[in-house]
Amino acid sequence: MRIDLNCDMGESFGVYRLGRDEEIMQYISSANIACGFHAGDPLVMAKTVELACDRGVAVGAHPGYPDLVGFGRRQLDCTPEEIENYLIYQIGALQAFTKASGTGLVHVKPHGSLYLAAQEDEAKAEAVCRAIARVDDRLIYVALAGPRGEAMTEIGRRFGLRVALEAFPDRAYLPGGGLTPRRLPKAVIRDPEEVAIRALMMAKEGWVAAVDGARIPLKADTLCIHGDGPGALEFARRIREVLAAEGVEVAPLDI
Amino acid sequence: MRIDLNCDMGESFGVYRLGRDEEIMQYISSANIACGFHAGDPLVMAKTVELACDRGVAVGAHPGYPDLVGFGRRQLDCTPEEIENYLIYQIGALQAFTKASGTGLVHVKPHGSLYLAAQEDEAKAEAVCRAIARVDDRLIYVALAGPRGEAMTEIGRRFGLRVALEAFPDRAYLPGGGLTPRRLPKAVIRDPEEVAIRALMMAKEGWVAAVDGARIPLKADTLCIHGDGPGALEFARRIREVLAAEGVEVAPLDI
Amino acid sequence: MRIDLNCDMGESFGVYRLGRDEEIMQYISSANIACGFHAGDPLVMAKTVELACDRGVAVGAHPGYPDLVGFGRRQLDCTPEEIENYLIYQIGALQAFTKASGTGLVHVKPHGSLYLAAQEDEAKAEAVCRAIARVDDRLIYVALAGPRGEAMTEIGRRFGLRVALEAFPDRAYLPGGGLTPRRLPKAVIRDPEEVAIRALMMAKEGWVAAVDGARIPLKADTLCIHGDGPGALEFARRIREVLAAEGVEVAPLDI
Amino acid sequence: MRIDLNCDMGESFGVYRLGRDEEIMQYISSANIACGFHAGDPLVMAKTVELACDRGVAVGAHPGYPDLVGFGRRQLDCTPEEIENYLIYQIGALQAFTKASGTGLVHVKPHGSLYLAAQEDEAKAEAVCRAIARVDDRLIYVALAGPRGEAMTEIGRRFGLRVALEAFPDRAYLPGGGLTPRRLPKAVIRDPEEVAIRALMMAKEGWVAAVDGARIPLKADTLCIHGDGPGALEFARRIREVLAAEGVEVAPLDI
Repeated sequence: MRIDLNCDMGESFGVYRLGRDEEIMQYISSANIACGFHAGDPLVMAKTVELACDRGVAVGAHPGYPDLVGFGRRQLDCTPEEIENYLIYQIGALQAFTKASGTGLVHVKPHGSLYLAAQEDEAKAEAVCRAIARVDDRLIYVALAGPRGEAMTEIGRRFGLRVALEAFPDRAYLPGGGLTPRRLPKAVIRDPEEVAIRALMMAKEGWVAAVDGARIPLKADTLCIHGDGPGALEFARRIREVLAAEGVEVAPLDI
Repeated sequence: MRIDLNCDMGESFGVYRLGRDEEIMQYISSANIACGFHAGDPLVMAKTVELACDRGVAVGAHPGYPDLVGFGRRQLDCTPEEIENYLIYQIGALQAFTKASGTGLVHVKPHGSLYLAAQEDEAKAEAVCRAIARVDDRLIYVALAGPRGEAMTEIGRRFGLRVALEAFPDRAYLPGGGLTPRRLPKAVIRDPEEVAIRALMMAKEGWVAAVDGARIPLKADTLCIHGDGPGALEFARRIREVLAAEGVEVAPLDI
Repeated sequence: MRIDLNCDMGESFGVYRLGRDEEIMQYISSANIACGFHAGDPLVMAKTVELACDRGVAVGAHPGYPDLVGFGRRQLDCTPEEIENYLIYQIGALQAFTKASGTGLVHVKPHGSLYLAAQEDEAKAEAVCRAIARVDDRLIYVALAGPRGEAMTEIGRRFGLRVALEAFPDRAYLPGGGLTPRRLPKAVIRDPEEVAIRALMMAKEGWVAAVDGARIPLKADTLCIHGDGPGALEFARRIREVLAAEGVEVAPLDI
Repeated sequence: MRIDLNCDMGESFGVYRLGRDEEIMQYISSANIACGFHAGDPLVMAKTVELACDRGVAVGAHPGYPDLVGFGRRQLDCTPEEIENYLIYQIGALQAFTKASGTGLVHVKPHGSLYLAAQEDEAKAEAVCRAIARVDDRLIYVALAGPRGEAMTEIGRRFGLRVALEAFPDRAYLPGGGLTPRRLPKAVIRDPEEVAIRALMMAKEGWVAAVDGARIPLKADTLCIHGDGPGALEFARRIREVLAAEGVEVAPLDI
C-alpha cells in the first residue's frame, strides 16, 4: 500500500521568501514547482529543483496564470489558446531546470484559479491537457479526485495522459464530493491529528468524511499538503508518521 | 559554398506588433525567437515557431534580460548565476514550443545587452555557455565573428558547444574588427546594395571592409539581418538575390 | 451646441508603437491616457501629456487592469479593494505627469474590461468612483450613456462626481440601448460616413439608431473615437468635419 | 535638539510579506514607502500610508528601478530621461494614496541602486531632482550626508529643493566619509548598542567614527534604519531609547 504526498514548492520570488521548502521537502514525495508566472523565478526554480533532487522528491510543474501580484488566485478570463500556450511555456521552462540538474519532469498540476478553471470549463481543461500532451505525453497530469474531478480526469485520458487523482486531507468536503469553498467557515481543517487521520482514510480505505459525516468514496493517487499555512510543516510530519505507522508507504507517483 | 542567414523574430508582445516576420521568414534560414523576457509572449512564440516550421527555417532561442520596457537593450548588472538561470528558463520555454510543433531547437543567440555582456565579461559569457550546455549540449551557440568575439568563441568551445560565428553585413566595422557603436554616425549601413555586397564578401571571400577601407579577415557561419528597421525586408531580399547570383547557398547552420 | 470628442491615447509601450497619437490628437478635445497597467509606460505618458498640452486637448486618466499582455481586455476577477487601489495608483501616476507639464488632470475613464465591470457590477463601479473621489473629487467620471450606463452614472453622482456620458458612434447599439458585443457581426461600423452621421445624430439630436432601426434616446457629453483601428484617423477627421459643417463645436468637457 | 528617523516601508508585494512595518512604524518619524517598481503594490501602498498616518509618521516616496525580481538593487543603465519619468510616475502614484488618506507627501528618497546612481552620476542625479521639482518643488529630497553626498546635495539645491541629509548608524564609514561597501566585512554593524551610540553621536555631536577610528564630521537631518534585517526592530527601539535618554527628540523633517 502506497501513496504520493505532494506540496506546492518554489513559490518564493526575488528577495521574497514564501513557504518552508527545505523542511517540508523531507516529508513529501512530489514537489509542484511554480514556474514564474504566479510565483517563482529562475533562481528559485533552479534551487527548488536541486533541493528536490537531493531529497529524491519527484519534480512536477505547477503552472499558473500570469498574475504575480494576485498569486494566480484570481480568475483571469483567458482563451483556451492562451492557456495552452501559457502552459507549454511554463512546463518547458521548468523542464529545462530538470535537465540542467540531470533529472526529469514527472508531472504537471495547474495552480490556483487555473486548477479551478480546469474543473469547471471543458475547453480550458482541454487546453491544459493539450499543452501537456504536446510538450511530452509521458508527463502525469494531476487532477482532482472525486466526482468534481471526473471531467478533468476524463479529458486527461482522452488526450492520452496518465492521470493522478489528488485529494486534500486538510480541506472539508461537501456531501457531493466537492471541496468546501475557502470563503466558507471550516473549509480548512487546522488540527494536524485530524488532517493526518483524514490522509490515512484517503490513502488506506479510499474514502473521506464529508461535512455532514457521510462517507464519500475517493480513490486518490496523491495527497496534497498546503505548504503556505502556519501548520504546514506539522501537517506534513504527522501525515507521514501516521501513514508509516499504518503501513502506507509514501512514494512518488507510479501510474 | 553556403552560409546561414539569421534574423531576430517573434518580438511582438500581446497586441503590440513588431517586425515583419511573415515576409522576412521567406528569406532567412535561421530564426532567433524572443523568449518572453525582453520581447515575445507565449502566443507569439507559438506562432513564430509554427511559421518557421512552415518555411523550413531552423529555430533558435533568443534570450535576453528581464526588461520588457527596455527591450533588453539596457545593461542590467546581473550576477553570472542570474544570467545562467535566466537562460535555462528561456531556452526551456522555447524548446517546449519546438517540441509542441514537432521540430527541434537548433541554436541559442543572446539578445541585445546580454550579447554585449557575453563579449565583454568572461564570467557572464561562461554563464551563458553553462546554461546552454546544461540544457542541451547539442545546441549551437551563436557568437560574434572576428577578433572581438574570440573570447565568446573560446568559452563556448571550452563548454563543449558548437559555435557559429556571426557577422553583420549592415553594420560598419572598426579597423580592429569590432562593430562601430550604434551611437556613432554611419554605424548602420542603410543602402541595400551595399549591405548585399558586404554580405557576399563575408560569405564568399571571408573578409569585410572596415571604416578605413582595410580588409578585415572574418570567417562567418551566419549573417545577421536586422528585422526591425524600415529596410529589413529589402535587405533580406537583396542579400538573398546577390548570394544566389554568386552561387552561395543559404542554408541552416551545419557545424 | 457643443460636444467633446475623446480617444484612447498613449497606448504604446517601450519600443512598441500603437495608435497614431500625433495625428489623431489634432481632431479630438479629450485624451484618455493609458497609465502603465494595461498599456503605456512613464516615457509614453510624459510624451502623450506633452502632446495633448501642445494641442490644447484635455487630459484624462485611462486606468485598466494590471494585464499588459492582455491589454486589459480580459476580465480579471479583482476585489473592489483591489480595483480601488489600482485606480488610485494609476490616476496619481498620470496626474503627476500633468503637474510636471503645468496642466491638470480633467477626467477618468476606465479601460476595457474594467469599463465593462463598472457597468455590470455595482461593487466594482463603487470602487472606481471611490478611488476617483478620494484622489480628487473635481475629476470628471466618464460613464456609458444610455440605459446600460445608468447604474454607472447614478453611482458616480452618489460619490459626488461630475459624470460625463459617453456614446460610441462606431459601435452598433442593441434595441435596449446596450452596445452590440464585439464578437457579433456588424458590432463595429467601418464606414467613415456612417460613423460621422451617427456622431452628428448623437451630438445634435440626442439619439442613435439601433440595429433594428429604432431610435434610442441618448444624451451624450462625449463621443469616443477608437484610435487603434485602421480607419481611426479618417473617422476622426470626418466626424470633426461633419460636426463643424452642422454647427456643432468640439470642445473639452464642461460639466 | 531633534532628528528624524526614517525607514524603508511598504516593501511587501501581493502575498509576499517583507519587513515588520507595523512594529517599526511606532519608532520612526518618516516612512519611505516603496512605489510598485522595485517593491510594493497598490494595496500595500494604501495600507502602509494608512499605517503611517495612524502613527503620525511623515510619508515619503521611495522610488526605484523597474526591477521587482532584483528588488531595485541591480544597476540598470537607464537614460536620465527614463529616470526622470520613472520618478514622476512613482511619486505621483504614492502622492495619490496620501491624498486619498487626507495627508500629504513630504519627502522623496531614491531606493537601492538608484540612490547609488544619484551619488555617482551627475546626469542621473539631475534627473532625480528634476522629477521631484516638476511634480512638487515643496517635496524634501533625501540625500547622503557627508563628503560622498555633496554632489547630490548641491544638485538638489540647484533645483530649488530642500535637502535632508541622511546618515546610516548601522553602516561602517570609510575614512573619506563614504559607506563601506556591503560586500566588505564589517560593512554592517549588528550590535544594537553600538548602532544606538553611533546614532546618538550623529544626532547630537555631528560626527561618526570611521573604520580607522577617525572622527568624520557629519551633519545629519535624518537617520536611516534598515527595516529588513533580523535586528531591525531592536535597532529602532534602542536608537529611540538612547536618543530620548540623551534629550534628542525624534520628529519628522522640518527643513
